[in-house]
Amino acid sequence: MSSSIFPLSDGASWSPEDHCFMAHALRLAEKGMYTTDPNPRVGSVVVQGNEVVGAGWHQRAGGPHAEIAALRDARGRAAGATVYVTLEPCSHHGRTPPCADALIEAGVHRVVAAMQDPNPRVAGQGLERLRRAGIEVSCGLLAREAERLNQGFVKRMRLGLPFVRSKLAMSLDGRTALASGDSKWITGDAARRDVHRLRARSSVIVTGIGTLRADDPFLTARPNDATELEQPARVILDSRLRSPPNARVFQQPGRTLVLTTASDPRARQALLDVGAEVLEVEPDGAGRPDVAAVVRLLGRLEFNEVLFEAGASLNGALLSAGVVDEWVVYLAPCVLGDEARGLFRLPGLAGMADRPELAIVDARRVGSDMRLILRSSG
Amino acid sequence: MSSSIFPLSDGASWSPEDHCFMAHALRLAEKGMYTTDPNPRVGSVVVQGNEVVGAGWHQRAGGPHAEIAALRDARGRAAGATVYVTLEPCSHHGRTPPCADALIEAGVHRVVAAMQDPNPRVAGQGLERLRRAGIEVSCGLLAREAERLNQGFVKRMRLGLPFVRSKLAMSLDGRTALASGDSKWITGDAARRDVHRLRARSSVIVTGIGTLRADDPFLTARPNDATELEQPARVILDSRLRSPPNARVFQQPGRTLVLTTASDPRARQALLDVGAEVLEVEPDGAGRPDVAAVVRLLGRLEFNEVLFEAGASLNGALLSAGVVDEWVVYLAPCVLGDEARGLFRLPGLAGMADRPELAIVDARRVGSDMRLILRSSG
Repeated sequence: MSSSIFPLSDGASWSPEDHCFMAHALRLAEKGMYTTDPNPRVGSVVVQGNEVVGAGWHQRAGGPHAEIAALRDARGRAAGATVYVTLEPCSHHGRTPPCADALIEAGVHRVVAAMQDPNPRVAGQGLERLRRAGIEVSCGLLAREAERLNQGFVKRMRLGLPFVRSKLAMSLDGRTALASGDSKWITGDAARRDVHRLRARSSVIVTGIGTLRADDPFLTARPNDATELEQPARVILDSRLRSPPNARVFQQPGRTLVLTTASDPRARQALLDVGAEVLEVEPDGAGRPDVAAVVRLLGRLEFNEVLFEAGASLNGALLSAGVVDEWVVYLAPCVLGDEARGLFRLPGLAGMADRPELAIVDARRVGSDMRLILRSSG
Repeated sequence: MSSSIFPLSDGASWSPEDHCFMAHALRLAEKGMYTTDPNPRVGSVVVQGNEVVGAGWHQRAGGPHAEIAALRDARGRAAGATVYVTLEPCSHHGRTPPCADALIEAGVHRVVAAMQDPNPRVAGQGLERLRRAGIEVSCGLLAREAERLNQGFVKRMRLGLPFVRSKLAMSLDGRTALASGDSKWITGDAARRDVHRLRARSSVIVTGIGTLRADDPFLTARPNDATELEQPARVILDSRLRSPPNARVFQQPGRTLVLTTASDPRARQALLDVGAEVLEVEPDGAGRPDVAAVVRLLGRLEFNEVLFEAGASLNGALLSAGVVDEWVVYLAPCVLGDEARGLFRLPGLAGMADRPELAIVDARRVGSDMRLILRSSG
């Protein structure tokens, strides 16, 4: 069996109608953007001739998978149908029975998948099972789009690591706050709404003790396009367990974790008492939680998409460690001047050749601000 | 006579062909981008039926105006023709005889102008003269595009002031150089080529004594799209006349001016000896050349478009004085860290409400970098 994640099976080629129905399934998958963690976002449609007779998507872990939802929606009209699904149907008993079996039982004629399941427990076996049952199977249609929907899930399945974003909001001159710490608000309404969508799709939001103490943030997602929403977990990197137990993060719905390098039983108990989880991680050279170790831990905790919202210190450490997949930078057209706070605390560079290089992969206007997305240029 | 700069005369409406021919004339006008100073860029076509029988543009001050070049190109086929011209034909004897008279003598039937000449010595009189001679006249077609070609000339004619740009090249985190001063190169090839086009269209490039002493720049335009080019003049703001007479700027073709607040006869003579012009301007509160006074002086010297390429100190003064029409910011996707040099030296802001606000009017990729154009948001 191929280990590649989206092989174009059987030399298949797809019709314009195939593209259209798979695009429909992808749009359905997006409806799970804020709710499926730790599972992937998946959509599916059941088609008879050129008519969609069933449509569904995965809503939350423990609930029906997308194919099952689509078959149910088809109400017995699935026999002889083509089923489009944005991720390979599963072949294993997880929280729900295998979807491959359900498709076989429904008597479908053909299954088109956007990509193989990167989950090593599936990895082509679902498609193989369908094929052995005599169903016409192809895989790889709109694979890139399907993978983009689940960057976190795919990376975690492949590498055991989450997809990591860091969000920055800065003035034209690269400043995140006045010298006083005041940063409310550099960016405009539209950018702040965009950040809430970014938070809502994230599995966990991470910040540092400095930001916690300076801003006392809620770290919750309050997007204006959500009908359903699982609040992301919150993580505080707090080397010396200085998080105030009355901080707002501990009063929000969902999990709050404090990652520390200290073992201060009293401070720990005070945080446990307000419902936080406290975990020890290995320190970096400066005694702070090692950011690479933090990211590995978040992978083991089954977080797919991690969003850092941090200050210059933590962002400098993230940049140096090379653990960020995507920098999401909101640039506001205002000027704070050279006494204001910078974006990245870094040791002085010896020369221009030593500077960290990134690549701009997306740039667009968000209200009166710009949003840039950058990745490593390596 | 209306004082508006591009009235839609006589309730005129224009055909698709009119738009097409005026667009052609605008493209011709652009050919003078690097050479017409202190005159405007103007293009013209002569049309018989739907055929262009003559085309021309203004190449340099003292040479024929666009209409004259187009009439000459038409070689006697202008009688009864329609002439499209991107700026109102002149009615006064300047360095050349009035174009309005030449059009009348050529026996043209109709003249379409993109905009009135903002020169108070013309200001509608050219069109009026044509009308009185029985020629069908309309004005205002693609006026915005025509004005954009000559922002500097138009502003200078209206207000006596040049159009002022300031160019900045920065890292993602808003830094222009390492702490050591090293800034070669933050941006990529494509951005640097773009800067040379910006220089080439400028009438004058201005920098501060700090940049002169640190970088010893040429401050010449070396665009790769120029067949003909007038080098912009160079201006050094040098409060204490510390410009080294052996600096490279003094060895380049064209004018170099040193603007100072000092009267040091010896230093002055050393600069005069290398061909520089030395002018005194009024000081600001810190004893440096007052940037508003500098801009007014550059207008009196008939510079249309001024390009500042300066460090944090001068840019801070420009921002505070509000004299910049357009900030051209090249953002490179690299990080220099918080010890590197900032973009704007400003007194610390008391609060976020005091921050200078700009507006992004254009954003595009230039090679691997971004170019943002910003204006005052007022």
